[in-house]
Amino acid sequence: MTSISLVDILKAREVVKKSRSVVRTPMLTNVQTRLGLEKGSVDINLKLETMQRSGSFKMRGLTNQLANAPSSVLDGSRKLVTMSAGNYGRAFAQALHERNLKGVVCMPETAPENRCQLIQGYGISVERMTSTELMTTVKRHVIEDGMTFLHPFDDMNLIQGYGSCGLEILEDVPEVDLVLVCCGGGGLVAGIAAAIKLSGKTDCQVVAVEPEAAPSMYQSRLDGKPATITPKPTIAAGLAPPFTGGICFDLAQQFVDDVVLVSEQDIISAVETLYGIGLVVEPSGAAGMAALLAGRVDNVSSKRVVIVLTGSNVSPKELDKLVSDNVKK
Amino acid sequence: MTSISLVDILKAREVVKKSRSVVRTPMLTNVQTRLGLEKGSVDINLKLETMQRSGSFKMRGLTNQLANAPSSVLDGSRKLVTMSAGNYGRAFAQALHERNLKGVVCMPETAPENRCQLIQGYGISVERMTSTELMTTVKRHVIEDGMTFLHPFDDMNLIQGYGSCGLEILEDVPEVDLVLVCCGGGGLVAGIAAAIKLSGKTDCQVVAVEPEAAPSMYQSRLDGKPATITPKPTIAAGLAPPFTGGICFDLAQQFVDDVVLVSEQDIISAVETLYGIGLVVEPSGAAGMAALLAGRVDNVSSKRVVIVLTGSNVSPKELDKLVSDNVKK
Repeated sequence: MTSISLVDILKAREVVKKSRSVVRTPMLTNVQTRLGLEKGSVDINLKLETMQRSGSFKMRGLTNQLANAPSSVLDGSRKLVTMSAGNYGRAFAQALHERNLKGVVCMPETAPENRCQLIQGYGISVERMTSTELMTTVKRHVIEDGMTFLHPFDDMNLIQGYGSCGLEILEDVPEVDLVLVCCGGGGLVAGIAAAIKLSGKTDCQVVAVEPEAAPSMYQSRLDGKPATITPKPTIAAGLAPPFTGGICFDLAQQFVDDVVLVSEQDIISAVETLYGIGLVVEPSGAAGMAALLAGRVDNVSSKRVVIVLTGSNVSPKELDKLVSDNVKK
Repeated sequence: MTSISLVDILKAREVVKKSRSVVRTPMLTNVQTRLGLEKGSVDINLKLETMQRSGSFKMRGLTNQLANAPSSVLDGSRKLVTMSAGNYGRAFAQALHERNLKGVVCMPETAPENRCQLIQGYGISVERMTSTELMTTVKRHVIEDGMTFLHPFDDMNLIQGYGSCGLEILEDVPEVDLVLVCCGGGGLVAGIAAAIKLSGKTDCQVVAVEPEAAPSMYQSRLDGKPATITPKPTIAAGLAPPFTGGICFDLAQQFVDDVVLVSEQDIISAVETLYGIGLVVEPSGAAGMAALLAGRVDNVSSKRVVIVLTGSNVSPKELDKLVSDNVKK
């Protein structure tokens, strides 16, 4: 069984704290009154990883991955390689650029062209291929070209870095009863849950939220082992990897209390509601909010809830399309 | 000379605090690190009136205006009337709807149709006319129909209500050196400046920010009396009234330290920058940020700055158009 310690997470927290790549994101409190929800019913607090550098929480994990990379990486003699269609690739490119390191992002050909350009703008190479070729291409770069692979979600240093978000939640809302975290690969929810439970706050429930279209962690828990799935199309593309990582699964089994699913419509409504109160949140980043607003989590009444809004990388055009398509339905 | 007292503002603050129509908006601290501005150069704090109910700061003033309205208004026997193309009209409609009161909004025919529908959706009548007919129509409703006029910016109860925002700024950032507030009619900046200075924080500078296209307060200060101007077209439509109110001018003369101007491009860049860190801010609401980012305010180095972001009433489509038009330039 994979294990993680509070000492590891505290060490990662120090790395993250000292890094110029990561900011301490704000906690918005008392959001239920702005949403017009009846007073006293539920206390909603939003952890704004939407305001994290690179526009998502990924920078926390990457910073700790890089801090623990071999010296041959840090002195620039070995290139780095990863695979991502989304926020991890973006953060990877920005983090490497800031450290003057070289790297390659293997990207599925279905990813939008502007993502590709953004990453190349940081001086990082992009190689496009079918999804099934991603892992083999990464392995080839490692074996034949001597590159170092940074895993986009199933990596202990990454997860420890994400733990820093859990520690900040406890600092800002010490009496938290329930934390809702969206779940793609599962690294973020594993890191946050481990940080909270290992800090002694064992009575705080941590719930992972996945789209119905891509229930990889949900299926894994049913199966009792990491599952491979075929995701359906979803607007929450960042939450739709085809499998759950082994490390993430093991940690989630130990520290995550439940996994709930949200529909596409739940997610769109949450994005709209958050936009309406002045917050830019991408669909993947709004899944936790969606679960609360759509009533997918039981017994929230009177609870102190923290919802992690994980990313804001969505353009006005994409948001407009989301809302317009929704109106048409 | 118009006068205002701290007692009046504190009284308005209590009204605002007790009202379900107004929320205590969050202060985002340490924003300079997220913006990647050099550490130590300036400490940026954002007061998010973008998250206020009705999507702008107007609800603070309206709530205090209504609390001080005659009983014939509050018992529903007299209708209310105002004139507005923007956020005041929206807040007016929502506030009346919540209190089950009736009213009329006189709106220039240039205002977007969706604004009109939004107000009518609250059960409030809209009458459309040319800008020059607005004031005469309001007067006719007062004289012939016995309605009570709520002035959209030049009203002491309104300004006292806005003072509540200044008191919250002092609570959240007690050592503030500089406050930047966008200025249309001038009610908000007058209320905030009065609250801060009358609270004894006389060493805190309060600066009003206007678009170059509609410099009514700037011109008024040059003239030494409230000016009438012909605004040029501006994306900051909410900051472009054709004249400065007498009460606002008098209070600004007493409490506002300076007035600075920002270009259309300054405003667009600020909207984009704020969107990039996950905040929805309409062009009018971003003028204060624009002044800082574009270097329109002198000697900000090492200062603790609060910028009031005043509204978030802008659709994804409007934001997309703003950004696209800007790219074309």
